[in-house]
Amino acid sequence: MLPPAGPFIESPLAPGPVSRPGPRGFRFQDLTVLGTLDKTYILAQGPDGLILIDQHAAHERVLYEALKSRGPAAAAQTLLFPRVVEVTPLQADWVKAHLDQLAQAGLMLEPFGGASFMITAAPAALAHADLEAVVAEAVETLSPSKSFTNPQAVREMALQVMACRGAVKAGAALAPEAIAALLVQLDEIAVSSHCPHGRPLWRLMSYQDIRQSFRR
Amino acid sequence: MLPPAGPFIESPLAPGPVSRPGPRGFRFQDLTVLGTLDKTYILAQGPDGLILIDQHAAHERVLYEALKSRGPAAAAQTLLFPRVVEVTPLQADWVKAHLDQLAQAGLMLEPFGGASFMITAAPAALAHADLEAVVAEAVETLSPSKSFTNPQAVREMALQVMACRGAVKAGAALAPEAIAALLVQLDEIAVSSHCPHGRPLWRLMSYQDIRQSFRR
Repeated sequence: MLPPAGPFIESPLAPGPVSRPGPRGFRFQDLTVLGTLDKTYILAQGPDGLILIDQHAAHERVLYEALKSRGPAAAAQTLLFPRVVEVTPLQADWVKAHLDQLAQAGLMLEPFGGASFMITAAPAALAHADLEAVVAEAVETLSPSKSFTNPQAVREMALQVMACRGAVKAGAALAPEAIAALLVQLDEIAVSSHCPHGRPLWRLMSYQDIRQSFRR
Repeated sequence: MLPPAGPFIESPLAPGPVSRPGPRGFRFQDLTVLGTLDKTYILAQGPDGLILIDQHAAHERVLYEALKSRGPAAAAQTLLFPRVVEVTPLQADWVKAHLDQLAQAGLMLEPFGGASFMITAAPAALAHADLEAVVAEAVETLSPSKSFTNPQAVREMALQVMACRGAVKAGAALAPEAIAALLVQLDEIAVSSHCPHGRPLWRLMSYQDIRQSFRR
């Protein structure tokens, strides 16, 4: 499966020390989770070998798909307790000119005086994220771009930033239930090979390679 | 560290998909055990990355060192309940001619009529092993050899066979306490890089390699 076309696509994968993800041939939720390496990679036993899952990249893809699959209307969920985010004066001008495009991505902002904005609605998929930080980073990432004339590009980039910022970080300890939930979600999305930036979500270290390295 | 000189030494390691064991720079007992892959490889987090330990090879080396470090006298522990092992008539002739050399390796056998022998004493390190099977395999491996004139070679080969046969198998589930005990034992022996047959005990998959394969 190819990563989606977008501004962040990088060059094709370089051959690494582990096999590339091919057609899966397994369900993530059927894997036996062994543990987490360095609070970054979920280790699981699969039918063909050891599977390493990049927890951040995987969650990022899950969030991205969730954000994208909802229409602009359904994406935004009104906040019970609106929050205020402050940006720079230059960014504020950009936000004011792009309120519609941001709303298309599910981020509803209202001018709140000066360079402040009230977040009145946000995608439900970001319910557990630090929304102020997500909005601040989305604005910082998007505002320097000159694509004022391309609402679709703004939406796409906003979705990517939201997914990246909203996803669990590398280095954050995941509870077993959170890992199990993530694996189920990975099975439910269409693209489970790469994150929206084009990085692989998981790697297989085949039993054959392992045996060979042990000269078994 | 080089594997010990012996008849089973194989060719140098071929480059595999994971890094070769170098100077360790860690204690096995300090590793964070994550789980066991395919009931064969212990997975642990080390300072430099993911460490895979071949449970059979590691245990084999530990047993071998334990068997070897004891002098011939101390190696043999009288059995409370002697057991009888049957070999082929040809093997029986060989055993009768090599009772002394086998005793040097800690295996005390007494002719028990026909092609049967009573095991009266065995190395304490094999207390939990299937002694009849160990003796049968030792005899089967050693008896075709022509090294009747080299008691040292018989002892060395007997130690290797006993270590291999007495070690936990690949595919046998290990309890967490058994893994912990094995790691402590690995720290206590001098050669913890290869099994007596020259196969690596463990492999490091460095964080750098993993990151690279995920293009982080």
